[in-house]
Amino acid sequence: MRIIVDAMGGDNAPLEIIKGCEEARQEYGLDIILVGSENIVKKSAEENGVDISKMLLINTTEVISADDDPQSVLKSKPDSSMTVAMKMLADGEGDAFVSAGNSGALCVGGTLLVKRIKGVKRPGFAPVLPHFNGGCFMLVDAGANLESRPEMLLQYAIMGSAYMEKVMGINNPRVGLANVGTEEHKGLELQHKAYELLKDSQLNFVGNVEARDLPYGACDVFVSDGFTGNMVLKTYEGVAKALMGKVKELLSKSAKNKLAAALIISDLKTLVKEFDYNEYGGAPIMGTAKPVFKAHGSAKARTFKNALRLTKNYVDANVVEEIAKAVK
Amino acid sequence: MRIIVDAMGGDNAPLEIIKGCEEARQEYGLDIILVGSENIVKKSAEENGVDISKMLLINTTEVISADDDPQSVLKSKPDSSMTVAMKMLADGEGDAFVSAGNSGALCVGGTLLVKRIKGVKRPGFAPVLPHFNGGCFMLVDAGANLESRPEMLLQYAIMGSAYMEKVMGINNPRVGLANVGTEEHKGLELQHKAYELLKDSQLNFVGNVEARDLPYGACDVFVSDGFTGNMVLKTYEGVAKALMGKVKELLSKSAKNKLAAALIISDLKTLVKEFDYNEYGGAPIMGTAKPVFKAHGSAKARTFKNALRLTKNYVDANVVEEIAKAVK
Repeated sequence: MRIIVDAMGGDNAPLEIIKGCEEARQEYGLDIILVGSENIVKKSAEENGVDISKMLLINTTEVISADDDPQSVLKSKPDSSMTVAMKMLADGEGDAFVSAGNSGALCVGGTLLVKRIKGVKRPGFAPVLPHFNGGCFMLVDAGANLESRPEMLLQYAIMGSAYMEKVMGINNPRVGLANVGTEEHKGLELQHKAYELLKDSQLNFVGNVEARDLPYGACDVFVSDGFTGNMVLKTYEGVAKALMGKVKELLSKSAKNKLAAALIISDLKTLVKEFDYNEYGGAPIMGTAKPVFKAHGSAKARTFKNALRLTKNYVDANVVEEIAKAVK
Repeated sequence: MRIIVDAMGGDNAPLEIIKGCEEARQEYGLDIILVGSENIVKKSAEENGVDISKMLLINTTEVISADDDPQSVLKSKPDSSMTVAMKMLADGEGDAFVSAGNSGALCVGGTLLVKRIKGVKRPGFAPVLPHFNGGCFMLVDAGANLESRPEMLLQYAIMGSAYMEKVMGINNPRVGLANVGTEEHKGLELQHKAYELLKDSQLNFVGNVEARDLPYGACDVFVSDGFTGNMVLKTYEGVAKALMGKVKELLSKSAKNKLAAALIISDLKTLVKEFDYNEYGGAPIMGTAKPVFKAHGSAKARTFKNALRLTKNYVDANVVEEIAKAVK
């Protein structure tokens, strides 16, 4: 299997990216094509003793930053690592593409360059998040399309279910509709219509789900319009991070507190690990004609390696074909 | 000052409500009118030794539950404590109304029975939430009106600013617009138009605010359409509660962990208190012609007393008049 990788995307590129790639290459037997500035990647590899000799390196001269406008940057930077990589994927030079770069640009490029699966209205950005019962759930759409139609929400549910079942190994994933209450009549026209479509589908629809129940694992696929999904995603991650930070601060505040920390360190590590997005590696862009996977922007080698493992499963499990059959 | 209180609303009514009322009456010198079932209230007071002899008690025969449909329940239960109390407020029999009952019914009743301040398009539900830097912020609208127009968002900002300045004592409150990114062009048409209105206003507008920055106190008034606001509110409260629960569970897991807990207990209490919504007492319904205040549904006596204190400040500071001048 050949996976194309954006060597320049993310906060820790290229070093952590190429480290993760080399580890994944060895462990999972992947062929990796790195796309990025030859000079920068080679220099980083040499200086840090990372062997990239077994990976193909395609030189590009431009880099898309997190601040670039997703709608225009693929055209304005035609020789960026992301643009070139997605064109290569579309041309059949690889089986999947992974990047830790600009999410918005990745969604736009997934749609315009890699193209959609036939029948899919709009690809959705679909991060997999940890909950507090030791599992995870998918939030789709987290912002690829700020405005959504009911049929799009149904497709997000179909695509999310396929991914959670085939890649994450969850049997008959429970689909929940993001809403302001659990009763059927809650929400606006979008939710009312989507509710009907989901109820009539073959999916394991568990009804409306309130965001307050997400941390307790209320569903496996949380379906939402992109604007709301993005707001929920950022609140979810933001509050967890801020609160964890506060607990950490407390535990290192004094000698006494440090002693307490030492007593609970192994349980604390388990808790932190349970709620560590690095375990889940990132977010597939659901609905593209070939797998496109977004690794977390702050991904280090381990997270990026996880992203490559999940992408491998994404390819192996033929999720794209599953979706094509389901939306036909 | 005469405050009308829904003695039947909330998870802990009537006992915790009447306890909070009696404490507030003594401490703040308020005249309190309890509205609710005379039998139930008197029995609860007698059995628990709460002296309600200094408060007026108005008998009603119906109770609105949390599950009742907000749109219809005020009509279908005309002799409910909430309906009667709001009619009394409208008729000038009190200066403000406080309830820990059904939020939706309170918003509908605020609009239909208490009526709007002249010029206000729609009252907004406006919980005040703690952030992790030891302060608080207002989220408005948290679901009174699921759909919003740009002018409504501007009014939410005006009303929220008046409250945060006059009642919570925050000088020149920073207003942030709920959005999926901080750049001016982010969001949908609603956000674009609201951005322009806020920029041109006299408010201290700090631009778009992402929900991930709320725990760090990114703004004092977070303005949103009701659907998104409700989702953010429930994610914010849900994640914080779930994570705090996990930490608590961890600290009581073993003898060793309990020892650790004993070492950090005072710092932990400070942290929990900092992030305790009980300190902020609840949520005003902003835009009603007289102050209507929602205490948290799970309010105990202390929280309800806080709600009464804030309502007193709400009346004292003439927030309703401030808003009337500002929206004219």
